[in-house]
Amino acid sequence: MRALRLTDTGPVLDREYPTPSPGPGEALIRVRLAGICATDLQLLAGYKQGYRGVLGHEFVGEVVKAPGHEEWVGQRVAGELNIGCGHCDLCRRGLGKHCRRRESLGIIRRDGAFADFLTLPVANLHPLLEALPDEHAVFVEPLAAALQLLEQCHIRPDQRVYVLGDGRLGLLVAQVLARTGCDLTALGRTPVKLAILAERHISTARTDDPAALTELLARPADLVVEVTGSPDGFALARQLVRPGGILALKSTFAADLPAFDISSLVVDEITLLGSRCGPFPPAIRLLAEGAMAVQPLIHARYSLDDGVAALEHAGRRGVLKVLVGG
Amino acid sequence: MRALRLTDTGPVLDREYPTPSPGPGEALIRVRLAGICATDLQLLAGYKQGYRGVLGHEFVGEVVKAPGHEEWVGQRVAGELNIGCGHCDLCRRGLGKHCRRRESLGIIRRDGAFADFLTLPVANLHPLLEALPDEHAVFVEPLAAALQLLEQCHIRPDQRVYVLGDGRLGLLVAQVLARTGCDLTALGRTPVKLAILAERHISTARTDDPAALTELLARPADLVVEVTGSPDGFALARQLVRPGGILALKSTFAADLPAFDISSLVVDEITLLGSRCGPFPPAIRLLAEGAMAVQPLIHARYSLDDGVAALEHAGRRGVLKVLVGG
Repeated sequence: MRALRLTDTGPVLDREYPTPSPGPGEALIRVRLAGICATDLQLLAGYKQGYRGVLGHEFVGEVVKAPGHEEWVGQRVAGELNIGCGHCDLCRRGLGKHCRRRESLGIIRRDGAFADFLTLPVANLHPLLEALPDEHAVFVEPLAAALQLLEQCHIRPDQRVYVLGDGRLGLLVAQVLARTGCDLTALGRTPVKLAILAERHISTARTDDPAALTELLARPADLVVEVTGSPDGFALARQLVRPGGILALKSTFAADLPAFDISSLVVDEITLLGSRCGPFPPAIRLLAEGAMAVQPLIHARYSLDDGVAALEHAGRRGVLKVLVGG
Repeated sequence: MRALRLTDTGPVLDREYPTPSPGPGEALIRVRLAGICATDLQLLAGYKQGYRGVLGHEFVGEVVKAPGHEEWVGQRVAGELNIGCGHCDLCRRGLGKHCRRRESLGIIRRDGAFADFLTLPVANLHPLLEALPDEHAVFVEPLAAALQLLEQCHIRPDQRVYVLGDGRLGLLVAQVLARTGCDLTALGRTPVKLAILAERHISTARTDDPAALTELLARPADLVVEVTGSPDGFALARQLVRPGGILALKSTFAADLPAFDISSLVVDEITLLGSRCGPFPPAIRLLAEGAMAVQPLIHARYSLDDGVAALEHAGRRGVLKVLVGG
């Protein structure tokens, strides 16, 4: 089969990669469409050095084989990316996504979705509603990650919330948080991206406009969500959160933060909240309802044959979602 | 009056310091007894460089004057240390302890408790129950800081909790958390300090015992409270918290942390929780009930005349609470 592999010398399209075989409890899935995420680009840049294999973890596919679970065959599905061992203390407490021996599709020891086929445990699969076209269904995984904030925080309607970062994930996070009725402002630097939110009546502000920034800093928020993935973004997010407030971290950073004044977290009683993967069922519901603007986030679609070019395109400044499939 | 001042060249006992005058809404308080806290020692070491004035913020005193609030005169009181402006966005939301223009007794622009007299707004005062002797009442402020954890976290009986640090505050934090019924282990390096907890049926472990440490690391906790105040302590606390767990920071650090892998907070969905001053009324109740072992924490008592020696004593390795008064 075809597979877009990360090798020591970069990404390579392999046309004769062996088709995987489903293990016990697993399904073989034909990938219909996949999305390129910031994590894929960070893996290319050296984050979690050592992952070598097929990239990709946002996908929609069709179950081709599921030995012992034939009811899944033919179903169109999205799939959760983490595969816990099922036996350790964390897995037994329902924390399988944090299992120390976990595999993660396209990230840790499990070939990913930029290929003709992938395998996942059937326990990871979620059937998709017919109303949900493939091009929207590829957003299930990142939308679930955005929804994880609502699993972790009780966001109240009278709270002021800033989402810092107008990239792929930031635009989803802002749309999710807007639904809580909170006093939300989405912050970014790219007018065309912020306009996607403004059209949906979400307040936006430019952090590269000194006057706007001064105004924001004078009105710090109860909750700031950092989705820029850059150390500069973290520093600004820290300044934008009020004492006693929450600074949620939604993006990983390819580098460490420089020296960090941790005492200020104590004095200001700040909560730093790490947030990663989230629940699929509400993401599927919201996308099927058409409640999320995802179409304007799609900037390009490539055949898997042109996967290397797709990765290059997704890495360009200002580019939102690039899809790969077919 | 006598006052123990922090000057550019260190702490100095001034015998002719002017007695303060209470401003509007304030009381003049004769200090009966005060406690030396890690924050005092950090101020000596250069934390929050620039504070110059009378040190001390843990005290019990007697109201001598309270113009317009005569009902307070003669009362024995403890006092909260933060004085907000009363008018800003934070003060209006009940966040006066975080007011950007706040004064803090003995820490920010307000002479503190290592003196014959101090002033505080009557709004900061709490009358003390007769059952509470002065030597225990000086623990109201640090015990309130320990109780702040229960204000910020819902600690469940089936959670595993580690308190890392067997200093003054750590021993109070451990006693407070033990009352929740959680699976608590207090971690430290000083047998004689841990024994204070062990006598109260609180499990303890030595972090300088490699076998014990290995066992702890194999059983990470749902909540770890960092009370060592050292960057090494932070690094160990981070290792001891399970994915999805909470790392509460109870102590300020005189130095920045070195480069910090913030992505690991995202991947492991760790919550870092800064925690500072807490509620006085439950601290007064618990101390009056005799529910806290504070007597064994008192290592020395000095007259204010010997305040400089008291600070030196409190700074010695292994020393718990040193009291100053009379």
